[in-house]
Amino acid sequence: MIPFVSRASAAEQAIWLKHLSDALPNESILPFSSLTSLQKQDCDIAIVANPDPQDLLSLPALKWVHSVWAGVERIVNEIASPPFAIVRLIDPNLSRTMSEAVLAWTMFLHRDMPKYAQQQAEQSWQPLPMVQAHERRIGVLGLGELGRVSAQRLKDNGFTVAGWSRTPKQLDGVACFYGEDGLLSLLAQSDILVCLLPLTAETDSLLDQMRLSCLPIGASVINFARGAVIDDDALLTLLDNGHLSHAVLDVFRTEPLNTGHPFWQHKSVTVLPHISAPTHPVSASRIVAANIDRFRITNEIPSAVDPIRGY
Amino acid sequence: MIPFVSRASAAEQAIWLKHLSDALPNESILPFSSLTSLQKQDCDIAIVANPDPQDLLSLPALKWVHSVWAGVERIVNEIASPPFAIVRLIDPNLSRTMSEAVLAWTMFLHRDMPKYAQQQAEQSWQPLPMVQAHERRIGVLGLGELGRVSAQRLKDNGFTVAGWSRTPKQLDGVACFYGEDGLLSLLAQSDILVCLLPLTAETDSLLDQMRLSCLPIGASVINFARGAVIDDDALLTLLDNGHLSHAVLDVFRTEPLNTGHPFWQHKSVTVLPHISAPTHPVSASRIVAANIDRFRITNEIPSAVDPIRGY
Repeated sequence: MIPFVSRASAAEQAIWLKHLSDALPNESILPFSSLTSLQKQDCDIAIVANPDPQDLLSLPALKWVHSVWAGVERIVNEIASPPFAIVRLIDPNLSRTMSEAVLAWTMFLHRDMPKYAQQQAEQSWQPLPMVQAHERRIGVLGLGELGRVSAQRLKDNGFTVAGWSRTPKQLDGVACFYGEDGLLSLLAQSDILVCLLPLTAETDSLLDQMRLSCLPIGASVINFARGAVIDDDALLTLLDNGHLSHAVLDVFRTEPLNTGHPFWQHKSVTVLPHISAPTHPVSASRIVAANIDRFRITNEIPSAVDPIRGY
Repeated sequence: MIPFVSRASAAEQAIWLKHLSDALPNESILPFSSLTSLQKQDCDIAIVANPDPQDLLSLPALKWVHSVWAGVERIVNEIASPPFAIVRLIDPNLSRTMSEAVLAWTMFLHRDMPKYAQQQAEQSWQPLPMVQAHERRIGVLGLGELGRVSAQRLKDNGFTVAGWSRTPKQLDGVACFYGEDGLLSLLAQSDILVCLLPLTAETDSLLDQMRLSCLPIGASVINFARGAVIDDDALLTLLDNGHLSHAVLDVFRTEPLNTGHPFWQHKSVTVLPHISAPTHPVSASRIVAANIDRFRITNEIPSAVDPIRGY
């Protein structure tokens, strides 16, 4: 018996319960609210999607939780020194979808779609100079699963790609930078910056006025990670003074983005409602199921999040 | 001595003369207007970019002309039974740029960018259902060099791709249709239709009300070929009655598109100023030069346009 612990809507929980039950026919998947006190004593695993921390702490036998999402910063922030391991979703389907979004909105910027939309509104016929893909330098922040697959896909489509991560990494055909100095070097040579960093104490407001100003004049930014990685006021200042050309934002400090927020009507901002890489319940449930089935046989907890590092 | 024959602006002609001269250091490349009567007697080759037909017909020794563009329908239409061969540009760089544009605007439609732009204007936060690339069926009209490379690239990026051409063709992993019946079959299963057909007597207004109506409800159209392949009124009717979702148009019957044309302000039309695959003068000049150098050695004219077929 495995509880599904979530603050999502009842409709959303019902979808997850169905797909998780289909993927785990030998387990009984129950909503947390339906557990008896006796059942709570027995749970060694929980499946979670934005859980209430108190719910998890009420399960004394809990060894580990499996998130159905890739981002787990809320659990990590809300539970100091959790007495259980936190396993996040690593889904090849999710990486494929994210890399598709990265490619799609990189092309959106690379092929000047914002400027052509503006020109159409003005009935202005004005071909812009064509930049070859190999002349366009893309910087990818974060070289975990999502960053790695995205960088590779950009490279496969002809762009010149560099990447940055906290610790040194190697990627075929991608110039890799790391650490604070490496970040400044990467920023200085990124015509389009793609942010795929996890949100941690270190990445909170990482892209502030100083660092965003290191981007070349005319550069653009894509944020598909978490809203808090960027300092919104700094971004607006640099868009308004022409240092930056455009920002594609899929994530925000508050979601949904507040009505009246300056991003909505800014001519150089594309607002997306957190759609770059939605979790696919069928695919995610299969991965969660495989990890749980393996644990039942081997008693080994899958590779877990480091609560200090935050991802 | 080879004349460059063109109705392009003086500035544009100067760019071509420079790059062609660089690529053909053993030839003297002259603007047609500077030729003496005596020089005109000697020209066996001309390089052309939208030439005045009378200029070409004033060159009695002309064996063949090399266009610096891929589309040659104007020369073919303006000169009945030309006494010289017409060689058009086949440039791998052009195919790469066109396939990039096809991928970019397919992604634009696939990832619902027009709808998200509309929602942003309304400050509406509404994630739309995510369609996986393999669930999205793309139909490519025209399987010449540009169509073939574009279809392959769409396939490499995960889409389900079919293609159509006048005569039977085979492409790895792409369902290929041909002939009139094949066209109707392809249309019926294309969520996004990409038009890359040459303009000929047969393709003029090929996409009329009847054929566009064969597309599935909600389908979209990308035209990167020639404006006259689509019946504009039929397209507007099907966009207005909701049969079609969106059209991305880079080519028009009259270019620049007339001020006040209904396409400019139509919420379901993206107007582009003929920018999908601009010829790159450096790359094109090298290819023209290689063909001319080969002719000087072998006396063999490169593979030429069939004036009856039109491409």
